[in-house]
Amino acid sequence: MQPHALTAAEAAAQIRAGALTAEALLRSCLERIAEREPVTRAFLYLNPELALRRARELDKRQAFGAKLGPLHGLPFAVKDVFDTKDMPTTLNSPLYEDFQPGRDAAAVAVVRALGALILGKADTVEFASTGRKALSTNPFNPKHTPGGSSSGSAAAVGDFMTPLSFGTQTAGSLIRPASFCNLYGMKPSWQLVSREGLKNSSATLDTVGWYGRSVPDLALVASAYGVAVPEAPSVRGLRVGLCRSPVWSRIEPAGEAALMAAAQRLEQAGAIVTDLTLPVEFAGLPDARTLIGDYEAGAAFLPEALVFGDAFAPALLNKALNRAQLPTAEVMAAYNLADACRPRFDALFGADLDVVLTPAAPGEAPEGLHTVGDWVFNGMWTLLHVPCVGIPCIRGPKELPVGVQLVGPRLDDARLLAIAEACAPVIDADADWARRTLLG
Amino acid sequence: MQPHALTAAEAAAQIRAGALTAEALLRSCLERIAEREPVTRAFLYLNPELALRRARELDKRQAFGAKLGPLHGLPFAVKDVFDTKDMPTTLNSPLYEDFQPGRDAAAVAVVRALGALILGKADTVEFASTGRKALSTNPFNPKHTPGGSSSGSAAAVGDFMTPLSFGTQTAGSLIRPASFCNLYGMKPSWQLVSREGLKNSSATLDTVGWYGRSVPDLALVASAYGVAVPEAPSVRGLRVGLCRSPVWSRIEPAGEAALMAAAQRLEQAGAIVTDLTLPVEFAGLPDARTLIGDYEAGAAFLPEALVFGDAFAPALLNKALNRAQLPTAEVMAAYNLADACRPRFDALFGADLDVVLTPAAPGEAPEGLHTVGDWVFNGMWTLLHVPCVGIPCIRGPKELPVGVQLVGPRLDDARLLAIAEACAPVIDADADWARRTLLG
Repeated sequence: MQPHALTAAEAAAQIRAGALTAEALLRSCLERIAEREPVTRAFLYLNPELALRRARELDKRQAFGAKLGPLHGLPFAVKDVFDTKDMPTTLNSPLYEDFQPGRDAAAVAVVRALGALILGKADTVEFASTGRKALSTNPFNPKHTPGGSSSGSAAAVGDFMTPLSFGTQTAGSLIRPASFCNLYGMKPSWQLVSREGLKNSSATLDTVGWYGRSVPDLALVASAYGVAVPEAPSVRGLRVGLCRSPVWSRIEPAGEAALMAAAQRLEQAGAIVTDLTLPVEFAGLPDARTLIGDYEAGAAFLPEALVFGDAFAPALLNKALNRAQLPTAEVMAAYNLADACRPRFDALFGADLDVVLTPAAPGEAPEGLHTVGDWVFNGMWTLLHVPCVGIPCIRGPKELPVGVQLVGPRLDDARLLAIAEACAPVIDADADWARRTLLG
Repeated sequence: MQPHALTAAEAAAQIRAGALTAEALLRSCLERIAEREPVTRAFLYLNPELALRRARELDKRQAFGAKLGPLHGLPFAVKDVFDTKDMPTTLNSPLYEDFQPGRDAAAVAVVRALGALILGKADTVEFASTGRKALSTNPFNPKHTPGGSSSGSAAAVGDFMTPLSFGTQTAGSLIRPASFCNLYGMKPSWQLVSREGLKNSSATLDTVGWYGRSVPDLALVASAYGVAVPEAPSVRGLRVGLCRSPVWSRIEPAGEAALMAAAQRLEQAGAIVTDLTLPVEFAGLPDARTLIGDYEAGAAFLPEALVFGDAFAPALLNKALNRAQLPTAEVMAAYNLADACRPRFDALFGADLDVVLTPAAPGEAPEGLHTVGDWVFNGMWTLLHVPCVGIPCIRGPKELPVGVQLVGPRLDDARLLAIAEACAPVIDADADWARRTLLG
C-alpha cells in the first residue's frame, strides 16, 4: 500500500517504528496531490519545497534521537481561515489575497508543536461563512460539492491527498462534508480547542474540528488537546438513541437509508437501539442558531464592513452594519433557549442512553459548486456545544457516500470517541470502499 | 484648558468644529506623557513620530473634505494583548517581546476605521491573566497599583495622557482599575465587540471594553460598535437596586462608603433606591467563574505550554497541561449555573428596577505593584455577560479614588449608558477632582 493510502494512525505507527519517514509519507501525498489536484482543487496554497524541508527537519529530529510528539510526521491540510506562520491566510477572500499573518492559530500551533507537518491551506467558503464558495470538488464525482464551508479540508482527506485536516463548524461545516466525502470527522465540545487565530464568525458557534479516515485518526488529534480516550466499550448492550431530530422532514431518501442502515447494523451487533424524541422545545434550536449566528456575525464582521465597505461580501456587510435592527428580545430568547436545552440534553445520558445516532446530512452531496449542501441536520448540535463524530455508512443512488453522526454530552469527548471506535467497524461496514474506488 | 485635559467627547466636538486639530491634541497628550511617563509607566510601546504622522494624515483628511468618522482624531492607548498592525504586541511576556502581528485586532480596526489614532500599547498583567504584573503606577499615588490587568490602559487615561483606551475584563480587569484610577469604564455585554485578534484567556469570560473620563466618552466609543444611546432619562423616579452582592463580606470601609454615598446622592436627586438581594444560587457564581476561567485557560494557553514549555508562566503552564484533572462534573455545573442565572438576572429588570448599583472594587487601590487588587466584586457580572459602567464616586482615607458600578441586563448597553449619563453627575459629585489634583 502506498503511504498516502494509510490512515493517520497507521502512518504514525509506521513512522514511530522506523518503517516510514516523514519525507516518504509527504512525497507520496504530494504525488497524489499532483495527480488529483487539477480536478479536486482542494488547496488554496501548497508549497511542496517548504513541506519537504519541514519533513526532513522532522526526520532529522527522529534520526538524532529527539523525543517525538504523537503527531510526528503527519501531514495536515488547514482550512484557510486558520492563521499559519509560514503560509498566507486568505479566507478565500480577494480582500485578503496576500495576507500573511506570521503566526500560527492556536489549534495549528498545538499540532505543529507535537510533530505535525502543516502541508498547505485548504479552500473554504469565503470567511467560512457566506460569500463565494470554494472551487473544491467531491473526490467521488467532481460535478458534486464536497460540502462546506470546510470544502478543501474534506476533499483533501477524502481524496487521499493528506491523512488529516482541520476544519471549522459554525452551522454544519465539519460533519456534513465528512458525510459527503466518506470521512471520519470530529466536531469536539465547544472550547475544547482554542479558536485564537481563526477568523471569527460567531463566538457561541464557531468550533474547531478535524478530519481523518478512521476513529483512531480522530482520537490521535484529540489527544493533542488533552483528550485521553478510554478503551472502546462493547457494542453489545450499548444503548443507542436513534434521533431523527426536529428537522426530520428535511431528510432525503439516502439520508434516511444511511440512518436506518446504521441503526440496523448496530442492532445486529447487539446494541440496544431505541427511538429518541427530544423535548418539544428543542424544535426551536435551528432558528435560535440562525439568529445567534446572525447577531454575532454583526460583531465579527464589523471591521471588514468598515475597512472594505462595498468591496466586502454583501451578505456580511449587511449583517455587520444592521445588527441593531435585529430584535433584541428574540436574540435574548435564542440565547436562553440554547442555555436551557444544553443541560437537558446532557441529562438524557446515563442509565438509559450511551450515545445518540442522528443524520449527518440530508443525503448525498448535491450537484454543482454553487452549493455546499444543507446544514440543517448539524446546526442544533453546534448550538448545543456537544461533541459529534461523523462516520461513513452507505452509498446513495448516485454512488456518493452518505454518513451518520454520533453525538455525546458536553465535555465527554473522550467517551464519545471510545464509543465511536466500537461502533465504526459496524456502521462503516464496507470500510475499504473509498480506497477501492479512488485508489483502485 | 490644555487639550490633554479635555474629555474625549469634548475633544471630538472641538476637532469637528475646527477648533482643535488631531495633531494639536496629540502633541498635548505627548507632552503630558513626557512629563508623567517616568513615574506612571503606562506604556509598553510608544512611537511619537509614528503617532504624529497618523495625526497629520487625519488632519489632512479633514482639511481636504473627507467624511469624518465619529472618533476622528481621538487618541487611544491599547492594552498590549490586542494585535496592532503598526506596533508590537508583547502581552507583557518576554516570550513575545519582539512579536509584530501586522494586523489590527477587530476592536482596534473598528475604531481606526472611524478615525481614531492608535497612540501606543499599554502595559498589562502578562497575557491579561497571571504571571508578571505591569510596571504601571496609580496616577494619584505611584506607590499604589492602578489595578489590573488593564493596568496601563487605566493609568494612561487616569493620568490625562490619552482621553481613551482599550482594556479587557475576564474577572474584573476593566471596572476595578476604573475605580482605582477615578475613571469611567465600560464592560459591554458579552460579544458586543469581537475579540478577534486578542490573546484569548477564556471564551466565556474575555470581554473587550474601554476607559474614558465621562459617560459621553464611553458612549462615543460604544457608538463605533453600533450602540445608539437614547436620551438620558430623569434621575427622579429612576428605580435603582442597591446590590451589596453575595460577596459583601469582602467589602472594605472605603468601598462601603462609596456605595452608600452613591445611593444617598441618587436618592437625594429623586431616585427610588431599594435594596436588591439576588436569588440565593447567585452566591455560587464567583466560584463558577473561577472554575470556568481555569478550564478555558487550559485550551487558551496550550499552544504556549507546548511551544515554550518551562519558559512559560508556571501558573498558566499548569492550567494548560493539567486541564484533564479538573472535575468535569463541576465544570459542567459551573456552566449550567451561569446559564441559569443569566435569564434570571435579566428578568429582574422591568416594572420595579431600572438599574443595579453595586461596588466596583472592595476599596481604594492597594499599595504595591506586586498586586493589582481584588476582582471579587466584578467576577460574577463578567460571567453573567451583562453590561457594566464604572463611575467615580468618592476619595478614601488615603486620598485615593473609589468608584461604583451600574449594571444592566444583557444586550441593553444603550439604555445602561443613557441611565449612566443621567446618574453620573449625581454620583460623581466632585467631577473636577482629578483635574484639580493632577493638573493643578
